[in-house]
Amino acid sequence: MSTNSFGRIFRYTSWGESHGAAIGVTVDGCPPGIDLCACHLQHWLDRRRPGLNRFTTQRRESDRVEILSGCFEGKTTGMPIQLMIRNRDTRSKDYSDIADRFRPGHADITYWQKYGIRDYRGGGRSSARETASRVAVGGIARRVVSALAPETRIRGYMVQMGDSRIAADLADDDEIDRNPFWCPDAAAAEKWATRLDAIRRAGESVGAIIECRAIRPPPGLGAPVYGKLDTDLAAAMMSINAVKGVEIGAGMAAAELTGSENADEIRPGRSGPRYLSNHAGGILGGISTGQDIVVRFAVKPTSSIRVPRRTISLKGEPVEIVTKGRHDPCVGIRAVPVAEAMMACVLADHLLLHRGQVGENQGTIGKATKSATTSDED
Amino acid sequence: MSTNSFGRIFRYTSWGESHGAAIGVTVDGCPPGIDLCACHLQHWLDRRRPGLNRFTTQRRESDRVEILSGCFEGKTTGMPIQLMIRNRDTRSKDYSDIADRFRPGHADITYWQKYGIRDYRGGGRSSARETASRVAVGGIARRVVSALAPETRIRGYMVQMGDSRIAADLADDDEIDRNPFWCPDAAAAEKWATRLDAIRRAGESVGAIIECRAIRPPPGLGAPVYGKLDTDLAAAMMSINAVKGVEIGAGMAAAELTGSENADEIRPGRSGPRYLSNHAGGILGGISTGQDIVVRFAVKPTSSIRVPRRTISLKGEPVEIVTKGRHDPCVGIRAVPVAEAMMACVLADHLLLHRGQVGENQGTIGKATKSATTSDED
Amino acid sequence: MSTNSFGRIFRYTSWGESHGAAIGVTVDGCPPGIDLCACHLQHWLDRRRPGLNRFTTQRRESDRVEILSGCFEGKTTGMPIQLMIRNRDTRSKDYSDIADRFRPGHADITYWQKYGIRDYRGGGRSSARETASRVAVGGIARRVVSALAPETRIRGYMVQMGDSRIAADLADDDEIDRNPFWCPDAAAAEKWATRLDAIRRAGESVGAIIECRAIRPPPGLGAPVYGKLDTDLAAAMMSINAVKGVEIGAGMAAAELTGSENADEIRPGRSGPRYLSNHAGGILGGISTGQDIVVRFAVKPTSSIRVPRRTISLKGEPVEIVTKGRHDPCVGIRAVPVAEAMMACVLADHLLLHRGQVGENQGTIGKATKSATTSDED
Amino acid sequence: MSTNSFGRIFRYTSWGESHGAAIGVTVDGCPPGIDLCACHLQHWLDRRRPGLNRFTTQRRESDRVEILSGCFEGKTTGMPIQLMIRNRDTRSKDYSDIADRFRPGHADITYWQKYGIRDYRGGGRSSARETASRVAVGGIARRVVSALAPETRIRGYMVQMGDSRIAADLADDDEIDRNPFWCPDAAAAEKWATRLDAIRRAGESVGAIIECRAIRPPPGLGAPVYGKLDTDLAAAMMSINAVKGVEIGAGMAAAELTGSENADEIRPGRSGPRYLSNHAGGILGGISTGQDIVVRFAVKPTSSIRVPRRTISLKGEPVEIVTKGRHDPCVGIRAVPVAEAMMACVLADHLLLHRGQVGENQGTIGKATKSATTSDED
Repeated sequence: MSTNSFGRIFRYTSWGESHGAAIGVTVDGCPPGIDLCACHLQHWLDRRRPGLNRFTTQRRESDRVEILSGCFEGKTTGMPIQLMIRNRDTRSKDYSDIADRFRPGHADITYWQKYGIRDYRGGGRSSARETASRVAVGGIARRVVSALAPETRIRGYMVQMGDSRIAADLADDDEIDRNPFWCPDAAAAEKWATRLDAIRRAGESVGAIIECRAIRPPPGLGAPVYGKLDTDLAAAMMSINAVKGVEIGAGMAAAELTGSENADEIRPGRSGPRYLSNHAGGILGGISTGQDIVVRFAVKPTSSIRVPRRTISLKGEPVEIVTKGRHDPCVGIRAVPVAEAMMACVLADHLLLHRGQVGENQGTIGKATKSATTSDED
Repeated sequence: MSTNSFGRIFRYTSWGESHGAAIGVTVDGCPPGIDLCACHLQHWLDRRRPGLNRFTTQRRESDRVEILSGCFEGKTTGMPIQLMIRNRDTRSKDYSDIADRFRPGHADITYWQKYGIRDYRGGGRSSARETASRVAVGGIARRVVSALAPETRIRGYMVQMGDSRIAADLADDDEIDRNPFWCPDAAAAEKWATRLDAIRRAGESVGAIIECRAIRPPPGLGAPVYGKLDTDLAAAMMSINAVKGVEIGAGMAAAELTGSENADEIRPGRSGPRYLSNHAGGILGGISTGQDIVVRFAVKPTSSIRVPRRTISLKGEPVEIVTKGRHDPCVGIRAVPVAEAMMACVLADHLLLHRGQVGENQGTIGKATKSATTSDED
Repeated sequence: MSTNSFGRIFRYTSWGESHGAAIGVTVDGCPPGIDLCACHLQHWLDRRRPGLNRFTTQRRESDRVEILSGCFEGKTTGMPIQLMIRNRDTRSKDYSDIADRFRPGHADITYWQKYGIRDYRGGGRSSARETASRVAVGGIARRVVSALAPETRIRGYMVQMGDSRIAADLADDDEIDRNPFWCPDAAAAEKWATRLDAIRRAGESVGAIIECRAIRPPPGLGAPVYGKLDTDLAAAMMSINAVKGVEIGAGMAAAELTGSENADEIRPGRSGPRYLSNHAGGILGGISTGQDIVVRFAVKPTSSIRVPRRTISLKGEPVEIVTKGRHDPCVGIRAVPVAEAMMACVLADHLLLHRGQVGENQGTIGKATKSATTSDED
Repeated sequence: MSTNSFGRIFRYTSWGESHGAAIGVTVDGCPPGIDLCACHLQHWLDRRRPGLNRFTTQRRESDRVEILSGCFEGKTTGMPIQLMIRNRDTRSKDYSDIADRFRPGHADITYWQKYGIRDYRGGGRSSARETASRVAVGGIARRVVSALAPETRIRGYMVQMGDSRIAADLADDDEIDRNPFWCPDAAAAEKWATRLDAIRRAGESVGAIIECRAIRPPPGLGAPVYGKLDTDLAAAMMSINAVKGVEIGAGMAAAELTGSENADEIRPGRSGPRYLSNHAGGILGGISTGQDIVVRFAVKPTSSIRVPRRTISLKGEPVEIVTKGRHDPCVGIRAVPVAEAMMACVLADHLLLHRGQVGENQGTIGKATKSATTSDED
């Protein structure tokens, strides 16, 4: 029931504010005996860390994660794992002028109306800083996925910045780590760099679309009809700050397809069904087919901009506001590792849930091994 | 933890298969003392019922809902409410040929792989027939919303069929109930009728986009950061059969906006904040602003088509399949009342959750009454 | 969050009132592929059915259970299972005089104060009739336990009526089914029969203590520290009508033991640890040891008696009340099959939860097979 | 679903091991605007702290609690509250000899069998040290109770040590804080001191019975039938280390009562119903009557004793064990503040849940104000 928790068996509760003493996450339900050290988590946190390049906020956070419980001699014990990240560079003075006025596009006004109190320093609980907790727990989830579905990999990347979308046929996985945008198209990345520099200098911001893929997942994950894999993925991604839309497979464009175009035809593969296309995004009836699971989401432009915007004050008076703090001109960039983390959490949870209710996949097709699926490339 | 349940305080569990004895829903957490008779629910079920016109499946179901518990002398008692709808027109013979082969785009293959058993008659649990349960419980949720937020109305409508999208400026609310598409644009509805007739005759199907709006909701609904109102709406809509994408406010198009375009500016209104635009879709930081809550989702084309598709059999052999049963050429039509129902469930639940944790809105702005918001039209 | 639900993975929601149309239970999370027909459940319901002998309420209910969903061709499908039992012999007139006055010891007054409405017919939702739902779902849970832990048996019996307690050393398992009290001591049963006849004729009632045992359960069930097996068993039993106390193993008497008396010593057994005593009731640190799991609970005397009691009316006036309906002089008798059902539900759920998080027991002792335990009798 | 969480709306997750870096608790669902500083929590922690007198473990822990999130300027914000207590005096060497053998009566063997890994230092997660987290969160829960039910007080005390039970008619509330046993009977406390000295010197331990009372609670808390107030209290108390039995009101002794003895008669009081007795322990049908809520539980004797006990080693060999660490001869003493904390958590949660589903009590009796109840003393 907790509104700051996510997951069913692999379940975590996130806590902390942007400028409080620390942020962190309490993880319950992790299987025992999994190798885990802070270094595993640090690797992923370093990808999300602010200040990595000129396109992300210049806040300097080392984002050192501590494991306070649930591990013993380098392995998980099955007990709750507490992860804590101390906040260090919290220049609270930067935020003093937003204490009595509401930044448009931010949670300032709704938190105030609802709770009658808000930690306005850096957005408090509503800050994107909370996503560091997600990346940390995602690091644990990845290890659970590795243990239970060793072939599965998770990969996020940016496919659109502003109105510039990459061409699917130019995408190159190896390129993703080579540019500051996690963009699989080198030419697009270069264009985006020029453009984002201009946006940053103008004190403006821009939105983006992120795609995240689980490659070679096992079939059979997910459950009808409110625990569908796509339902949980949609919730996972929509819960990330600034996300305004989520798509699975063909997504919103599915509206424009006919039934014969949309139905992914099936052929016998070497070791299981082989699908001729993947409009479904790897999920049928809420359950994974074994094809790549494909989710996409839109991140709105950062609302913290230097362009003056009209708003009201706590006293209800009309005022203007300019946000002077350190911010991301395209917060979508840092959403990439967050998307991967959320994908990992959803998969880890469904792997355990599947094992709990069903054990292992029960149905066989032809003489194929239970649960095998052949990828499209066969 | 139940994967067939939805909600936190106002929580329901859906049960039943397309061609079993009955379908239904067990609703827990409904406040006591609310007027409720089957007639209230029947009204909404009749809008979703199959066979209403030539554009929906010709299956004849009276969809009579019975209230088996939780009501006494016409009022809810606060106890679990059991709603049951008997299945009547279950022509099981129509489905006999899909017992040993998997319909592309359907859950047939994943249910089989996971569970090793599936009720193939009419899709069993994965059938859109489950949405009748949603509409029934949505009828109860509407009464809860009426009791706690009497000004709030909920309205769904279709904004796109195939690639034909209505122009926002031609939308007319009064038109919605006058055509078989719940389309707010009479001219578009006429065009769609012609088009859908052709699609139906060709044994094909087409996708659609539905928009659903909560009009004049109270501010303050929703909670950080995994119980956000938009997160719960995304999960609610994505859990509906055939949905492949969900958007809040500007949705996927938010990627193309700049920060200054996207930030909905605020001015003092007669009785609270007045917003100059609504890219946020009525939600900031996961909490309702008091503006209209706007959610949109894409429904893929029905996978049951008469066009032959390639697939495999239970034995793993390559076969072709044609779906001969009675089906909707555009299942999006019947998704409209379902969307309204899910919106109602999310609001009812968050109204109770808000009352539970917070009581009533705690913050005031200027001299305004707590929790008031002025709509855009001021 | 639903307050009418129980369990985590194997989770059910109970619904219905004593004199409504029906009662029932919605079961989610049951593994697929388990043989299930109504006959399996009927067997257990028949043991709890009212009117079996002169010591239970003379209400005539056939208690026919229908399976409305979640089964296909005699096997569970992994989908929600809906069980419904129609109410038949609902002599509502018997209860008309309790509509405006509150029976002491009953939920009448608290339901009224809280909800402002109550289905007073037969106690409505607070009636022990709800326990039929428990017995029905317990029948499913037993089949899950059989599938996952085939050696485990569940056995309930009455160990005390009024102040008459059976001597542990005279207990004979084979006796349990031979007398109307599920009493393992034939002599005690005879004494109880005489005594209960007198109590019944006096219009009085009497309390009882029930013991329920899981015999040869697997070790490893349960989880720290709020999902302990004993915690869940305590909740399970305390949720049964009229239960006022729950004990595990030595129970309340553990207070009188010294540490050396209480610690169950361990020796190497043929195929695992062998315990020399079982004060712990088969649970250490919330996790089963593999010894018998022993739970005991006290059932208060039925509050529905013919002896006049003082109370107040709806108008707040002092009145007297005599309960004339058909009732059990010792409701503890029918609590025996209910206790077994709840034990089965707790075990089924923990078997699935254990499989989900841990897979199978991970630790070995000596050369013994994982998870084996030798019973005391070795 | 998390097994380390407790509560529904006011929900916390406990984490940490006895000899890890820290222990703590993540609290979600706390209402906003409640005054809270670490000092409020420290007050209660100091009552539970080890080393207070010669009858509790000599481990020296300052038990300083830090509030890491969810508070702003001395008030709760409605966001998750993270409480952390650093472990300081962790003499791990004391425990090195229990790494390869299982202490009878402890969780050592079950944790090992289930998880295949255990933090054996001080019992790790299964240590009673976890109860410090309960006391800390209980401090927050008390403030929620104060805010919503200002008249309600919570009071725990010890009523039995070994076989020595206090006489109810000699109980004096003012005495509770004056002796090291939280015993309301001065003479008994003196006797217990002599006795416990002997037990301690013998390297032995002894059990105890604790009673906890909520005084002047509001009627209407609790919900049928698996969210009963007594069910949640039973789970709350049974989840505490070493607890083997839980009683509400008359408890196990209810078995010996007749119906007419047991039914608490009702008379009109000055401002609501007045009960002539309280066998029910303040709860009817799972819902509070407004009388004192009375719960009692037995704590087994500490299993860590200096008397040699037979057990087996990791290799399965027969060995003897003596526990040399610092331990409580009667762990029941420190269970008193823990019981109060758990009672506070259950009440806080049900106050919020009640407000959520029902708002305020709906039924009136006579002309009395809604929800008032007159205490027995009227």
